[in-house]
Amino acid sequence: METDVKAMVQEKALAAKRASRAMASATREQKDRALEAMAGALEKGAPEILSENAADLEQARGGGMAPAMLERLALNPKRLADVARGLREVAALPDPVGGTIDTRTRPNGLRIDRVRVPLGVIGIVYESRPNVTVDAASLCLKAGNAVILRGGSEALRSNLALEKAIQAGLSQAGLPAEAVQVVRTRDRAAVLEMLKRKAEIDVVIPRGGRDLIDFVLRESWIPVIRHDIGNCHVYVDAAADLGMAEAIAFNAKVQRPSVCNAMEHLLVHRAVAGAFLPGMIRRFQEAKVEIHGDEAVRALAPGLKQATPEEWAEEYLDLVCGIKVVESLDEAIAHINRFGSQHSDAIVTRDKAAAGRFLKEVDSAAVYVNASTRFTDGGQFGMGAEIGISTQKLHARGPMALEELTTMKWVVYGTGQVRE
Amino acid sequence: METDVKAMVQEKALAAKRASRAMASATREQKDRALEAMAGALEKGAPEILSENAADLEQARGGGMAPAMLERLALNPKRLADVARGLREVAALPDPVGGTIDTRTRPNGLRIDRVRVPLGVIGIVYESRPNVTVDAASLCLKAGNAVILRGGSEALRSNLALEKAIQAGLSQAGLPAEAVQVVRTRDRAAVLEMLKRKAEIDVVIPRGGRDLIDFVLRESWIPVIRHDIGNCHVYVDAAADLGMAEAIAFNAKVQRPSVCNAMEHLLVHRAVAGAFLPGMIRRFQEAKVEIHGDEAVRALAPGLKQATPEEWAEEYLDLVCGIKVVESLDEAIAHINRFGSQHSDAIVTRDKAAAGRFLKEVDSAAVYVNASTRFTDGGQFGMGAEIGISTQKLHARGPMALEELTTMKWVVYGTGQVRE
Repeated sequence: METDVKAMVQEKALAAKRASRAMASATREQKDRALEAMAGALEKGAPEILSENAADLEQARGGGMAPAMLERLALNPKRLADVARGLREVAALPDPVGGTIDTRTRPNGLRIDRVRVPLGVIGIVYESRPNVTVDAASLCLKAGNAVILRGGSEALRSNLALEKAIQAGLSQAGLPAEAVQVVRTRDRAAVLEMLKRKAEIDVVIPRGGRDLIDFVLRESWIPVIRHDIGNCHVYVDAAADLGMAEAIAFNAKVQRPSVCNAMEHLLVHRAVAGAFLPGMIRRFQEAKVEIHGDEAVRALAPGLKQATPEEWAEEYLDLVCGIKVVESLDEAIAHINRFGSQHSDAIVTRDKAAAGRFLKEVDSAAVYVNASTRFTDGGQFGMGAEIGISTQKLHARGPMALEELTTMKWVVYGTGQVRE
Repeated sequence: METDVKAMVQEKALAAKRASRAMASATREQKDRALEAMAGALEKGAPEILSENAADLEQARGGGMAPAMLERLALNPKRLADVARGLREVAALPDPVGGTIDTRTRPNGLRIDRVRVPLGVIGIVYESRPNVTVDAASLCLKAGNAVILRGGSEALRSNLALEKAIQAGLSQAGLPAEAVQVVRTRDRAAVLEMLKRKAEIDVVIPRGGRDLIDFVLRESWIPVIRHDIGNCHVYVDAAADLGMAEAIAFNAKVQRPSVCNAMEHLLVHRAVAGAFLPGMIRRFQEAKVEIHGDEAVRALAPGLKQATPEEWAEEYLDLVCGIKVVESLDEAIAHINRFGSQHSDAIVTRDKAAAGRFLKEVDSAAVYVNASTRFTDGGQFGMGAEIGISTQKLHARGPMALEELTTMKWVVYGTGQVRE
């Protein structure tokens, strides 16, 4: 059985590598035609996709899956329509491939260009949401890559039905169906085998909770782009406009608490804690936000839950907010660098020097002064659709959009030059 | 014992992370002053460094180390002077940190800059050459990083003596000595522990043979930038200028056979094999190059050694050349993509269409038309000193110079913006 899984993954990896050559030479028109055809195939195939998804849901329910997880797994006509619209939006984006980044001519006459090319074969390892299957595949394809998808085992039937529609779209546009492949097994050995196939797979992108990401980081022989948790902070400085601080902290926590760029922890300088926190906490409580405070916060607003030392490093992804009073800008920066996840962190202040130090010294993908952390997003940054937010420092940092799904190569034009 | 090693590596990693904060804020003047001071300290400390190196050499000789390896391990006054000159050259290079890559203002008034910042903490795992200790450290420092160095165990005394000089230079410039640290043990458990410390180390760069690189790729939880072998090709097309082809192939093989951008295998289109190969082979033989040929080559030049199937994937790093006759451009491209190491590959041709296909379809860091592969080098590409040639596709591809030792962050300036 394990040999079968290995052989299957190997076969898919080799097929993906072959397909990646054709994808790298595909024109923008071909790729966009494929994306449009996929959207059509999804709409046409909706009854079958929904029925396979219903089978996945029934099995998951029988296995005792929690309601929140079932909700992530579920497709419905509206979600499918959103997925199809997403495909057409990606088709409308500019092609990131083929441009010349820069060019130089050396004293010996060599002309050296850097040109943008696809990464090659991308492996995506993710959890239960089947819409990721189509969203991730469409961005990888538009950037000229082939992709191998390994979603949650509980979504396997849904993913195979979606693969059918995607491959139909590729074939209609004259592109190889193997440019998008779903790993057809629930066996976890398939992930391990994927993570070792460095001769065929150029990069692995894990999407999911911390356990999945840590597993992939530990096991992979292939470069990984990490999309880690978002433990984002807002720091209200001694020189903050307190009205602005309240609006920003409220937005960052409440507008959409389940996403990675939502604020998890609020830090407040002691000098303004008394003036700021009682009103802020009341407003949070009216919005059903559960507050966990340190001693200083609880002294200002009695009856709050005590924040545990561990939770400063946690992502609640819910209407929960940890609040801490700090003695200084230094303490705020040190706290964020120690407990944060290098995602998005904001300072609210009128003090330019304090803002400058925060922006420079906080070691996160996105640092803000006087704005909500909720803007860390490909669309909001003007980059178009994104495959995730990278919280590591190599290759892509922050929103990972089409350009971040490409690489470059050096193209050297000579007239017979040799090295002296 | 193993606990001691773990604790030591952990302590060094935490110290490096602290030092990286100071390095990120260091001015160009401070960094350059440190590099100049290191050069002075190396010159002053030369007797001690050479005597520690002599002790390493004696131990290695006693352990039966091969002469070629002893040669790599050896320092002498000239090599030390080269290392000191290298430090001053790095000081003269522009500072890659702090510039604004681009800026945009969004419709909601948010100004979003991308600014260049250091990577943070870089781990270097390498083999016996002690000059790497200083060369690699100097580039990492200039780019504002802290660095942890784990060289070959046979070079430990040399590396510790070099660390002393480097740290003296850092202190003289008011920078933390812990910005450069050598792992002070021969225990291999130290490398394993380094490769797990993803909370402190941002990137690992292995430098050495394939076994070392594969070990690091397998074991690391931290992003790795691979500097793999260079199995470089020259392909002589049917439409080649044969005089130019001979000059390029000769240069690529003979000018410096021990480096990664030297040619290992020569592919020749059947249409020109008869006109080209006998003269080419004679010229190689006059330069003491050992030729391994396929059947078609051996038919043209009797008495040659037969190339084994395995050796098409190998890097000789020596005056040895594998030669193969191919039936077509397609076969040449497929051969290079299958057996090559995605480093540097060249076509010699007057046919623009053939050149275009080769440049597009060969999946290597650097692709050439009508020039020697020996130009893949930071200096030759106009990038300045390099830490190596990356053969992977993420973050850095080809020569890895100062800019590739940095990353970027998003800096967002608001006036109270919140997400709708």
